[in-house]
Amino acid sequence: MTQPVRHDAMRACNLALVLGEVHRHGALTRAALAELTGLTKSTVSTLVGSLLDARFVEETGAVRAGERGRPGVEVVLSGARMASLGLEVNVDYLAARVVDFAGVSRVSLRIERDNRGISARSVLTAVRKLASDALAQARDLDLTVAGAVLAVSGPVRDGVVLSAPNLGWRNVRADSLGVPVSVDNEANLAALGELWYGGGGSDFLYVSGEIGIGAGVVVDSALFRGTGGELGHVVVSPTGPPCRCGASGCLETYAGQEALLRAAGVPTVEALVTALTAGASAVAAAGEALGLALASAVNLLDIDRIVLGGVFGRLFPWLAPPVEAVLTARLSALRGSVPELRPSELGDSAATLGAAGRTIHRILADPARFLPR
Amino acid sequence: MTQPVRHDAMRACNLALVLGEVHRHGALTRAALAELTGLTKSTVSTLVGSLLDARFVEETGAVRAGERGRPGVEVVLSGARMASLGLEVNVDYLAARVVDFAGVSRVSLRIERDNRGISARSVLTAVRKLASDALAQARDLDLTVAGAVLAVSGPVRDGVVLSAPNLGWRNVRADSLGVPVSVDNEANLAALGELWYGGGGSDFLYVSGEIGIGAGVVVDSALFRGTGGELGHVVVSPTGPPCRCGASGCLETYAGQEALLRAAGVPTVEALVTALTAGASAVAAAGEALGLALASAVNLLDIDRIVLGGVFGRLFPWLAPPVEAVLTARLSALRGSVPELRPSELGDSAATLGAAGRTIHRILADPARFLPR
Repeated sequence: MTQPVRHDAMRACNLALVLGEVHRHGALTRAALAELTGLTKSTVSTLVGSLLDARFVEETGAVRAGERGRPGVEVVLSGARMASLGLEVNVDYLAARVVDFAGVSRVSLRIERDNRGISARSVLTAVRKLASDALAQARDLDLTVAGAVLAVSGPVRDGVVLSAPNLGWRNVRADSLGVPVSVDNEANLAALGELWYGGGGSDFLYVSGEIGIGAGVVVDSALFRGTGGELGHVVVSPTGPPCRCGASGCLETYAGQEALLRAAGVPTVEALVTALTAGASAVAAAGEALGLALASAVNLLDIDRIVLGGVFGRLFPWLAPPVEAVLTARLSALRGSVPELRPSELGDSAATLGAAGRTIHRILADPARFLPR
Repeated sequence: MTQPVRHDAMRACNLALVLGEVHRHGALTRAALAELTGLTKSTVSTLVGSLLDARFVEETGAVRAGERGRPGVEVVLSGARMASLGLEVNVDYLAARVVDFAGVSRVSLRIERDNRGISARSVLTAVRKLASDALAQARDLDLTVAGAVLAVSGPVRDGVVLSAPNLGWRNVRADSLGVPVSVDNEANLAALGELWYGGGGSDFLYVSGEIGIGAGVVVDSALFRGTGGELGHVVVSPTGPPCRCGASGCLETYAGQEALLRAAGVPTVEALVTALTAGASAVAAAGEALGLALASAVNLLDIDRIVLGGVFGRLFPWLAPPVEAVLTARLSALRGSVPELRPSELGDSAATLGAAGRTIHRILADPARFLPR
């Protein structure tokens, strides 16, 4: 009675051993696998046969000379059959991703929507719909999705989201999705994403900066579960602004996405990045061109002061350095000095003020003409 | 027959003389005016009487001890009656401004509208409407508008706009507006605005940066009319991009408002200024707060590497310096070194990748359970 059980258990263990080596090392020959696992070559061949049948692995076309002995075909993880579903509820979007067994993202769905002030039940209904779309697409790709994990920002214990202050959730459990599903903390899962698919190495603190700020710690290539992960609620200044969590002066009130965009006065992170990169370089390039044109003007007109008005007045702090650099490079040798640059403070009003001033000066020049009859 | 004419001419001249001194010096007593103009005190008193009657000047309440002799009431320019209308046609707006004789803007109207690809006639109809609104408001303020000047970007000769390439105008003359109206170059008028109402002093080159780029030169407090003012069409690079003016590589193609915003990838100058100021300082402040929270985390957890993900990953180039500065300040003495900071390259995908990876690792740990039946 116990014989088949023990045999099955041992086979299961050896399958995991072989597959684990292929995962760790990448392409391996059967001979190399036998060496790494300590199993006999014939056992390895049988196990690899099962893994090939199950399409957990596939043989690579490449054949190379073994170091000792005959050339061998290599096996690698295969993304042909097995896959997995990753889901995420964030404050401002829902996402689903099907990753195949070889680690390739095969399906990626994302819905931008504000999930605040909406019941957890209704959000989870939307997640179920998104998951079912992703599963349908996976089926079309001939993939078998073995399970799903849902990422939620907030502390999770035993599959229950204890609280997600930015979502207004308390004690929420994941719905059934047609595949086994569990819930975990977003930052912890992102740290695992970084460990498995990113470049963070085997030991790091991962900081997840979204509307909430979470953290996950990876030690020796494993998630360190000892941390709460709620970096967003670490106190930065005890007398700081009130936080959604009930405390005040939390990191989130300073560096959370909403606090950041509000302080920056831009609607989206894209706008902020664009502005910080393209904005600065665009102004620098414009300043250089302006400097060249002004250097020509100064060479022709002998001017000691240049007032930058209109748009240039408003952009003066960023525009002046490149303009000055060009003026210095092109004029200082010949003239010994460079004209003073200053911003106009009249902005858009300069032209209408000047236009109005013209008539004022006509009156000043001949007030008698404008005396009342 | 000639007596009254000569008398009138002299009186007109003296009125201008007295008014000119009040304009130049500000508040002056009649005695000071007599001294400055060389006129007798009684002549000055008569002239000031006329100017007071016409509400060109008004007496100030303040009375101070004259340097030699009795205290005197001072007169200053008055904005109570006379005023002037300044108008502007720009590529993306129309503006009207009523400035009173004391130099105070009393009415300011502005319409944002794209004036390109619209006939000059139709634009001037809109200007006439705007001007008439401004004149009506001036009347309500009991102001007498003595004349109007219209600012247009482009070379103007004898009251005719020779060409305004950004507007598509050629040989356009100003309409009648119910008050005498003349047209002048926008940059020249803005230079006069800077001279009369700004802080540029008496000698400067004024650069007007809008969609077009104009320039006006002020020498000895007067507009130097020798320049065309079309700085935007000074060549910056002979092989540069084609310009609306027919040439190529003009300054405008590099530093005009449209070129600048296109390069910066933002819709408006406001967005660019906001991004350059608020954006940078918001990210710096967020980085400082994040640094403080991470320093606490590092003190508790002994971490050597920190991966910044999500929004923080995208903002890494700007966020890392303030974070590092805080970490160095707070940790280096105790630890001797500061954790390495690096950006995650997974962006928004980290959590779903990690979530999906979890199931992949469940399969890796026990593939036998997932063998096909």
